[in-house]
Amino acid sequence: MARPRHFLSLKDLTSTELATLVDNATAHKNALQSASRSSWPLASSLSGSTISLIFSKRSTRTRVSTEGAVVALGGHPMFLGKDDIQLGVNESLYDTSVVISSMTAGIVARVGPHKDIADLAKDSSVPVINALCDTFHPMQIVADLACLTQALSTNAAGLKGLKIAWVGDANNVLYDMCIGARKLGIDMAVATPKGYEIPDRVKSMIEEAGEGTLLETNEPEQAVKDANVIVTDTWISMGQEEESQKRLKAFAGYQVTEDMAKRGGAADDWKFMHCLPRHAEEVNDEVFYGPRSLVFPEAQNRLWSAIATLEGFVVNKGDIKKTQS
Amino acid sequence: MARPRHFLSLKDLTSTELATLVDNATAHKNALQSASRSSWPLASSLSGSTISLIFSKRSTRTRVSTEGAVVALGGHPMFLGKDDIQLGVNESLYDTSVVISSMTAGIVARVGPHKDIADLAKDSSVPVINALCDTFHPMQIVADLACLTQALSTNAAGLKGLKIAWVGDANNVLYDMCIGARKLGIDMAVATPKGYEIPDRVKSMIEEAGEGTLLETNEPEQAVKDANVIVTDTWISMGQEEESQKRLKAFAGYQVTEDMAKRGGAADDWKFMHCLPRHAEEVNDEVFYGPRSLVFPEAQNRLWSAIATLEGFVVNKGDIKKTQS
Amino acid sequence: MARPRHFLSLKDLTSTELATLVDNATAHKNALQSASRSSWPLASSLSGSTISLIFSKRSTRTRVSTEGAVVALGGHPMFLGKDDIQLGVNESLYDTSVVISSMTAGIVARVGPHKDIADLAKDSSVPVINALCDTFHPMQIVADLACLTQALSTNAAGLKGLKIAWVGDANNVLYDMCIGARKLGIDMAVATPKGYEIPDRVKSMIEEAGEGTLLETNEPEQAVKDANVIVTDTWISMGQEEESQKRLKAFAGYQVTEDMAKRGGAADDWKFMHCLPRHAEEVNDEVFYGPRSLVFPEAQNRLWSAIATLEGFVVNKGDIKKTQS
Repeated sequence: MARPRHFLSLKDLTSTELATLVDNATAHKNALQSASRSSWPLASSLSGSTISLIFSKRSTRTRVSTEGAVVALGGHPMFLGKDDIQLGVNESLYDTSVVISSMTAGIVARVGPHKDIADLAKDSSVPVINALCDTFHPMQIVADLACLTQALSTNAAGLKGLKIAWVGDANNVLYDMCIGARKLGIDMAVATPKGYEIPDRVKSMIEEAGEGTLLETNEPEQAVKDANVIVTDTWISMGQEEESQKRLKAFAGYQVTEDMAKRGGAADDWKFMHCLPRHAEEVNDEVFYGPRSLVFPEAQNRLWSAIATLEGFVVNKGDIKKTQS
Repeated sequence: MARPRHFLSLKDLTSTELATLVDNATAHKNALQSASRSSWPLASSLSGSTISLIFSKRSTRTRVSTEGAVVALGGHPMFLGKDDIQLGVNESLYDTSVVISSMTAGIVARVGPHKDIADLAKDSSVPVINALCDTFHPMQIVADLACLTQALSTNAAGLKGLKIAWVGDANNVLYDMCIGARKLGIDMAVATPKGYEIPDRVKSMIEEAGEGTLLETNEPEQAVKDANVIVTDTWISMGQEEESQKRLKAFAGYQVTEDMAKRGGAADDWKFMHCLPRHAEEVNDEVFYGPRSLVFPEAQNRLWSAIATLEGFVVNKGDIKKTQS
Repeated sequence: MARPRHFLSLKDLTSTELATLVDNATAHKNALQSASRSSWPLASSLSGSTISLIFSKRSTRTRVSTEGAVVALGGHPMFLGKDDIQLGVNESLYDTSVVISSMTAGIVARVGPHKDIADLAKDSSVPVINALCDTFHPMQIVADLACLTQALSTNAAGLKGLKIAWVGDANNVLYDMCIGARKLGIDMAVATPKGYEIPDRVKSMIEEAGEGTLLETNEPEQAVKDANVIVTDTWISMGQEEESQKRLKAFAGYQVTEDMAKRGGAADDWKFMHCLPRHAEEVNDEVFYGPRSLVFPEAQNRLWSAIATLEGFVVNKGDIKKTQS
C-alpha cells in the first residue's frame, strides 16, 4: 500500500498547494454560507468514515473547528482526549498508530512535542494532520491567510508583497506563519524581546521555504513600520503560568495598541490578527474589539481551513487541487 | 444579521407557543415510535450541522436526551464538558460565545449560574438553548407537560384546570413548572418547608406568566388536596451534600407516600412525577415504582421535548409552529 | 414488549450463531475494504439512531472499534465515560438502565464487575452488548476467530481441529476464547502459573459450551505442543500495577519466544496473537513484530467484529443470520 501523505507543517506544501488550500478555504466559506447546503458537492465525502481527533492538550477552537469540519464533510469525528488515550503510555506509539489508523480514515492530532506527531505519522496507514504541536500550527495559518485574502485581496496570489508584523513571543504559530508567508511572497517582520527570538533550527526551515523576506528585531516599533497587518499571540501559554512574572517584564512595551502602531509607522489601514485565546497584556481592548480587528473572522476561518485540509489530505488523498465547492 | 431567538426559560414563550411545543413533542413520539423512521420529514433537517453541547456540570438525562435529539434530526452533537471548555476561564465569555457560535448551528448549554447562559446568549449568533441552569429548566417542563397530555388528555389545551402539587424544595424545575403551568391554565400548589420558599424575584416572574393559580404552603397535606399530579425532586442536589443533615431535618414529613396523599385528600387517581435522579428520602418505593408513577415515560419525553425544542429554535429559527411530524 | 436479546458472553450464542458472526465479520471486511462503501447495504441501517457506549474504564481499541462500527452502520455513538456517568452512583442502576434504554437504540458497555453489565441488561429495553467486563470479552473473540479464518481457513467451520495454546494469565479474554473455541471444535491448551489457573466456576461454563477439548497445565512448553496458534495477553492489567513484582516472578518463563515454541514443539507455521496493549514481558519483539504475528490484523478485526455484532443484535434484533454484506 502506498504511504499516505501527511500534513505536519506548511513546509509539506509547495507554494502552489498552499495558495490552493487557502483559496479552497474561502470557496468553502462562500458555498456553505450562501447556497443551500444540500447541493454542496462535498457533503457526503466522508460519509460512514471516522476521523480520530487525538488531543493530548485542551484546545477549544482547534477542537470545534476540526470536529465541525469532519461533520460538514459527512464524517464522524471521534474525539479522544487525554483521559481517553495517552500517546506512548501503556503501549508503544508505534502500536497505537498502526491500530488506530487501521480502523479510521484519518487522524487529526493536537500534541505537545513535535516528535509525537512525527512518530504517529511515520507508522500510520492513514493521513495524519497536525492540529497543533509545539513547533507548527499549519491549519491556523491556512485560516489566517484565507482571512487576509477575504479582507484584503481576491485570492492567495494577491497577498504577494503584503507586510505582516509579528509582535510578541516566537512560537509555533509564528514559525508556520513565516513559512507560509515566504511561500506566498509575503514579507514578515518579527519583534521579540531579547532572549525570545526564533531559534536557529527554525530559522533555517523558514529560509528554505520561499522568497518572502524576514526581518527580525527587538523593537516592536521597527517591526510594525509599513505593516499592513499586525499579529500577536498570548505570551503566557498554558503550562507556562509560573513564568508569568518574568515574562510580563520581558514583554513590557509589546502590547499592541493604536499608539504603538502610529509610533512605528504602520500603514494607515493596518489590520489586527490574533489566534485566540486573548489576554489583555498583549493587545488592548481598543484594538482587539475595534474596526481593525480581524480576530473573529479569523477564528471562523479555522472551520473553512479544516474543511480544505481534510478535503485535500483525506478525501483527495494528498492531491491538493482546486475544489469544486 | 438578525439576532437569533434564544430559549432560556418558558418565560420566552407565549401560551400558544408552549402548547405547540408540548404537542409537537407528542407528535414526534408518535411518529418515531410507530412509523418507519425513514419517512420522518425531519430526519435530515440538521444534516451536516454541528450543535455544541456545553455542559459545565454532569447531567445524564439532559445529555442523553439532547444528544439523541440532535442525532434524530440528522445533526452532530459536539459534547464539550468541563474538561473541554471552561466558560469565562482563560478568555472572556464574549470571545467564546462569538467564536463557537460562528462555527456551529446552535448551542445547548447546561451551566451553573443563570448569568452564564444569559451572557452566552447575549453575544451568540446562533440560538442558545438552556439545558439547565440554577434558575430554569425549560426542556424538562416541556417534557413533563407532554407526558401529562399523553397520560391525562389529548393535547396541551386539555390540561387546563388540572391541579399539580409540588412537595419539596423550591428549585429551577419548580420555577419553570410554575411558569409553564400558568401559561396553560394549570393550578399549582407548592409545599416547601419554612425557609425554603420560592424567592420573591422568582414569584414575580411566575405571576407575570399567565392565568393559572399558585398556592404556597408549608404543609404537604394542604398542597396535595385535590391534586391530580404530585411532583417532587431531590432535596439534596449535587454540591449540597454537606447540607444534607440540616435538610433531612427540614424536609421531615415531605416524603411522598400513599399515606400522605390520602391524608391530604389528593384525587383518587393522582399521578406521580419526578425528574430524576431519585433518592429514597423524597418518595418511597411504593409510589416511585408503582402504577401511579409516570417517572419513566416522563424521562423518555425528555427526548421528544428536545427534538421539539431544536425543531422550533434551530431548524425553524424561532418560529414555533405545528410540526409536520 | 418482547425483551431484547443481549450479548454478554459467547455463551449466549449457539455454535452456528458464533460461526455466522465470525463469517459476517470477514464479509464486512471484504465489502468495506474493496467495494465503494456507498453500495454497502448496511450503510444506513442505524441512521438517526444513537447507541450509547458506557465505559466505566478506559479502553482504546474497544472504544475506537465500537465507535467506528456504529458510524459505519450510519448511527451515532454517544460515548459516556466515567466522568459522564457512574453506574449505580447517585441513582440505582435500574433507574439508569430504564432511562438510557428508553432514549437509545442499544447500549455497548465496558464495565468492571460482570454483575454491572448483567444488571444493566436485566432492565434494559434495548440490546446490551458487553464490550469488556472482568469475566468476558465476546467481541474480542469474534475478532480473533475472524482473524484466524482470514489467515488459516476459508470460514469459521474450517477452524475445527485447530489447536490454540494460551500461555499466560487466566483472564476474561481467555474465558470467552475457551467458550468460543469449544463451540467451533477448536482444541485449547492453557498454561498458567500455579495459583493463576482458570477458576472452577468458569471451568464449568466452558465445559458446557461445546465439543472442543481443554488441556490445562503449568508448563508453557506442554501447552504449545503442536499448537497452530500461540496467544498471550498482558499479565499486569490496569489497576494491578502494585502486584507487578509478585507477578513478574510467578510468570518467569512465560514470555512467548521462538525458543519456547521450538522447545515445546509448536507447529512449524505457528501464528501469534495478542489482544493488546502489549508489554515486553509477555512476548519478545522478534515474535510480536515478526512474520508469525497476527496482532495488527487481529486488532483491525475488532472493527469488523463490532459491525457484525451490532448488525446481529441491534439491526436484526438478535436474529443472527448470514449478512447480505
